[in-house]
Amino acid sequence: MMRILIAGGVAAGASAAAKARRTNEDAEIIIFEKGKYVSFANCGLPYFIGGEVPELDDLLLVTVKLFQERFRIEVRLEHEVVNIDPAGKTILVAHGGVVTRESYDKLILATGCAPVIPPVPGAELPEVHTVSTITDAQSIAGELDGAQKQVVVVGGGFIGVETAECLAKRGVPTTLVEAQAHVLTNFDPDMVAPVERQLKRLGVKLRLKKGLSGITGSGKVEGVTLEDGTAIAADMVIMAVGMRPVMSLAKEAGLALGPDGGILTDDRMQTSQPDIYAAGDITDSLDLVTGRQARNPLAGSANKQGRTAGACAAGGELSYRGAQGTAIVRVGEITIARTGLGEAAAREAGLNCFVSYTSTRNHASFYPNAQYMILKLVVEEQTGRLLGAQAVGREGVDKRIDVLAAAVYARMSVFDLEQLDLAYAPPFSAARDPVLMAGMAAANIVRGVNRSVTTAQLRELQKDDSYQIIDVRRSDEFLCGGIRGAVNIPIDQLRERVGELDRSKKYILYCSEGYRSYLAGRLLTLLGYDAANLSGGYRAYTMDV
Amino acid sequence: MMRILIAGGVAAGASAAAKARRTNEDAEIIIFEKGKYVSFANCGLPYFIGGEVPELDDLLLVTVKLFQERFRIEVRLEHEVVNIDPAGKTILVAHGGVVTRESYDKLILATGCAPVIPPVPGAELPEVHTVSTITDAQSIAGELDGAQKQVVVVGGGFIGVETAECLAKRGVPTTLVEAQAHVLTNFDPDMVAPVERQLKRLGVKLRLKKGLSGITGSGKVEGVTLEDGTAIAADMVIMAVGMRPVMSLAKEAGLALGPDGGILTDDRMQTSQPDIYAAGDITDSLDLVTGRQARNPLAGSANKQGRTAGACAAGGELSYRGAQGTAIVRVGEITIARTGLGEAAAREAGLNCFVSYTSTRNHASFYPNAQYMILKLVVEEQTGRLLGAQAVGREGVDKRIDVLAAAVYARMSVFDLEQLDLAYAPPFSAARDPVLMAGMAAANIVRGVNRSVTTAQLRELQKDDSYQIIDVRRSDEFLCGGIRGAVNIPIDQLRERVGELDRSKKYILYCSEGYRSYLAGRLLTLLGYDAANLSGGYRAYTMDV
Repeated sequence: MMRILIAGGVAAGASAAAKARRTNEDAEIIIFEKGKYVSFANCGLPYFIGGEVPELDDLLLVTVKLFQERFRIEVRLEHEVVNIDPAGKTILVAHGGVVTRESYDKLILATGCAPVIPPVPGAELPEVHTVSTITDAQSIAGELDGAQKQVVVVGGGFIGVETAECLAKRGVPTTLVEAQAHVLTNFDPDMVAPVERQLKRLGVKLRLKKGLSGITGSGKVEGVTLEDGTAIAADMVIMAVGMRPVMSLAKEAGLALGPDGGILTDDRMQTSQPDIYAAGDITDSLDLVTGRQARNPLAGSANKQGRTAGACAAGGELSYRGAQGTAIVRVGEITIARTGLGEAAAREAGLNCFVSYTSTRNHASFYPNAQYMILKLVVEEQTGRLLGAQAVGREGVDKRIDVLAAAVYARMSVFDLEQLDLAYAPPFSAARDPVLMAGMAAANIVRGVNRSVTTAQLRELQKDDSYQIIDVRRSDEFLCGGIRGAVNIPIDQLRERVGELDRSKKYILYCSEGYRSYLAGRLLTLLGYDAANLSGGYRAYTMDV
Repeated sequence: MMRILIAGGVAAGASAAAKARRTNEDAEIIIFEKGKYVSFANCGLPYFIGGEVPELDDLLLVTVKLFQERFRIEVRLEHEVVNIDPAGKTILVAHGGVVTRESYDKLILATGCAPVIPPVPGAELPEVHTVSTITDAQSIAGELDGAQKQVVVVGGGFIGVETAECLAKRGVPTTLVEAQAHVLTNFDPDMVAPVERQLKRLGVKLRLKKGLSGITGSGKVEGVTLEDGTAIAADMVIMAVGMRPVMSLAKEAGLALGPDGGILTDDRMQTSQPDIYAAGDITDSLDLVTGRQARNPLAGSANKQGRTAGACAAGGELSYRGAQGTAIVRVGEITIARTGLGEAAAREAGLNCFVSYTSTRNHASFYPNAQYMILKLVVEEQTGRLLGAQAVGREGVDKRIDVLAAAVYARMSVFDLEQLDLAYAPPFSAARDPVLMAGMAAANIVRGVNRSVTTAQLRELQKDDSYQIIDVRRSDEFLCGGIRGAVNIPIDQLRERVGELDRSKKYILYCSEGYRSYLAGRLLTLLGYDAANLSGGYRAYTMDV
C-alpha cells in the first residue's frame, strides 16, 4: 500500500490530498499541518476581520472530520515536518515537543509562506499581528470587538491593502504605511492612483515612502515610528510587509531550487527528488508569458499545482502548465486587476514592447450607471502579441481582466483582441466591449494608423518646444481643467481651423477618453501634419475612474 | 475624389462611414438611411420602452449634425436605396416620391433587417407594433404613458423576451406568446427553464407552444387569438416573431449569396461585385467554430463588419475574421448567455461531441451572497476542443461567457480551460473559478476519470432496471426532494456501506452540484463498481439557479 505524506494542509496541500485520494483509493494519505487548522481560506481573512464574512467557520473549507469521513485522509494538526531524508524516504515530524519519524513512498511539500516580521523594536508586543492564519484573524477580531482601537497596517501589498480596506469599512481608524512610493507595487505605478484615492476616501490615512522604524509602547502597543521620525498613535499593528516561502525543509533536503528561489518543479510538480513533489507558494514553475521558471504565490496556482502533485504522486498523470500572475483587489468601489507582464516587468524580461491605454465604460453608455475603467495593455512591438494587461475601475473590471487573462494564455495578439465575439446586451457591455476597444487602439498602433503617446511620454515632450498640445474637447470641457500648455480646438472645428496649425510643429492631441483625439489625429495625419494622440485621454492622464 | 455611398446608417452602416473617413479624408461619403434616425442603439429600445433608459435621445449615438461636423459625412434620412446598377456603378434613391440616380466608386450595403409581421387578421391595427426603430419605441411608450394597457408580445426571441421583461418591470400586464415549446430557441432548451420561471415571477404570462392566429378588434386592438382558440384581451400587440434581412437590393443586383441566404462576403467584406461591400445582418460570413459561412445578425458583428467594410472601401486594409454567435439576455435577476455552438447545432454540424454541466457559485462560497450558475460546455470527443458554452444564473454569468468566448475563439480545449489563470479575490471569484470547474469536469470526462451522464441521459436510464440511482447528499437534503427511484447513501457513509451495493448493477450517483457525486463516482469506480455521476447535480437536473 502506497503511503503519501503531505507537509502542509492549506490550499496546495489540501488540494493535493483530495486529488491523491480520487486517484488512488488504496493509498494511505496523511497531512501534517503545523497550524491549528487545515484547508482554510486564507484569502478570506481580511473579510472576516472587516466583518463581511460573519463567521470564522465559513472560512474552514474542509475540516479534519470531513477529510477523514469523505476522503479517508488523516490530518495531524500542530504537526510540523522538520526534516526530510530523501535517501531513506523518511521525514521527522515535531508535535508537542516530541519528534517522530515517518516513512513515505511519496512526499508532497506544500508548506506555503510565512509572514515576514521585520526585526524592529517592539515587534514582539502582543498587539502586533499578521494576517496569515485563522488564529491571527481571531486575535485581531477579538481585540477590535467592542473596543475603539486605532490600527496601523504596515505594508501596502495585497494583504495590507485588503486589510486596511476591511478595517476602514468596519469603522476602525486605520493608517497604512508603505515604504515604496505607491501601494500595490506588483501593479504598474501609474495604475494605482485610483486605489490610493479610494483608500483615502474610505478614511485610511496613507503614509507612503516611509518605512517602519519601530513600534512603541511598554507591555502593549502605543504607536509606531517611521524612518523619517513620524510618530503615529496606535493600539494595534498589522504586519503585512510580505510573505516568505518556507524553504528550510527543501534546502536541507538538497532539492534543486529555481531562479526565483522556489523549489524547481516540472510540469508534474515533481522536484529534483523523484519521490518528492512540491506545490504552492514554495515552488518555482513556468511563467506562461516569459517561458521562464518563476514563483507565482497565489491561490489559483496553489490549487492547480496541488491537484497536479496529488494526482502524480498517487500514480496518476496530470500536468500543470504554468501561471501568468493574474490578480485582483477590491478597494471600496474600486477594483484593480492584472494579468501577464506589467510594463516594467516586460522590459526587464528583455521584451520589445509598447503600452496602450483606453478609457471606456463597463456597459452601453445609454444604459444607467455606466462606469469608466482604464485598461492598459502591454504589447510586443511588431507582432502585437499581448504580453499583459492591467485594469482599474469599478463594475466589470473583473470580467475584462479574465478575458484578457484568457487572451494572454492563448498567446493572442491585439489583432485577435479586436475580433473577439463577446456578449453584448446593454446592461452588460457595449457593442464594442472595453476589451475590443483596447484591442482596436493597440492594433491600430501596430498598424501605424494610431500614433499615440502615453502620459509618461507626454510629460517628457512637454519640455520640448517643437511640440504643441491641442485639447480637442468642447470648450466647456476645456474650461473645467486640462493639460498645461494645451490650446483648445474642439474636434468639430478642427477641419475649418486647420489653417491655424503650423506644419513645422508636432502636435499632441487629447480629449477625455482618447477617442475624439484619435479621430483628430487621423484627420491631421491624413492632412499631412505630424500628429499623435494621448493614449486613453485625460482620464488616463489623471487616472480618473 | 472617391465617392463612397452607404445604404443604411444604423450599426454596420454608421461604423463603415466613420471608419471610411478615418481611412480617407478626401473621399465623399454619403449615408442613405431609409428611416428617420441614423446610428441609434436598437438594442436599447426595450430599455427605453421599460423606462430604464429615460430619454430616447440617449439612444442616438451619432446624430446627423455630428456626422457632418466631426466626420464630414453627409446623412440623408428617409432616403431609401431602391436599386443598384453594378455595371454602371449607380444606385437609385427614393425620397418623398422622387427617385434620383447617384453614382459611386464604392458602395457599402448595410440595410440590416426588417421585422417580420405575420399576415394574420388584424395585423394592420394601429396598436400593433414592432421594436425595431426609434419611431416604434416612441409609439409604444406614447401609448403606454399614463394609460393602463394590457400588452401581448408575440415571439419569445431576444427582442420579445427583453421587451416582455421591460414591460413587466414597468408594471404593464404582459403576456408572451411563443409558438415553440420554449422561449429563446437559439439556446439549448434545457438551459432556458430559469428564464421562463423568472418571466413568470416578473408577472409575465407565458403562452408556449401556441402560435398567433389573429388580432381582434375593430379600429383598435382588443385582443389576440391563438391557434388553439385561446383568446387573450389586449390593448397593444408587439410583434417580435423575427427579423428578416433586407435582401431585395442585393438579389436584384445579382450579388452572390451564402448558404444562410445572406450576401456572400470575404474577410474584407467585399461581395461578388468588387466595388460593392456589405456589412451587418444582411451578410453571410465566417462562423469561427464550424468554419462555414453563416449569418450572425448581432450588433457586435455588425460593428466589426462595418468597420472592415469602411476601411477596405476607402482604400485601407482590414480583415474581419468571423463570429461565433455569442449572445446574452438579462431577464429580471436571471442572465442567460451563450457562445459557439449549442448542443443541437454541434450535432447538426456533424461534430462528434459530448456535453458537461457544472453548478458553481459566482464567487467564494464564504463571501456573502454567492449565487449559483449552471454552465454547459459542448466539447468535441477525443480532442476535448471547446465547441460552445451556455450559462444561466445571476451575477457573473456575463464574465464567464466572455471568458468562454475568448476560449472558443482561441480554439482552446477543456485541458486549456482548467489551466486558465483567472483573477481570484473572494468578492469576484473562487480559487477555482466556475470556468475552471467546468474545464476540470469536462477534461476529466475526456480523460476517463469522470464518468458522467446528463439529465437527458438519466431520464432514459431511469427506464432501465439494471441502473440504480444513489443520492449521495446528506439525508436531510434527500428528504427535501430528489430524483424518483433514488436511494440515499450519504457520501460520508459510502465507504462503510459499500457492501450494500450489488456488483451486477450499474450506479448513477447524484448530489446537489455534482462535486460530491463525482467523488463518490471516483470511489466506486476505483473499487470496481460500474458508476457514473449526474453532470451538474440536482441543480442542473432542476435548473435551479
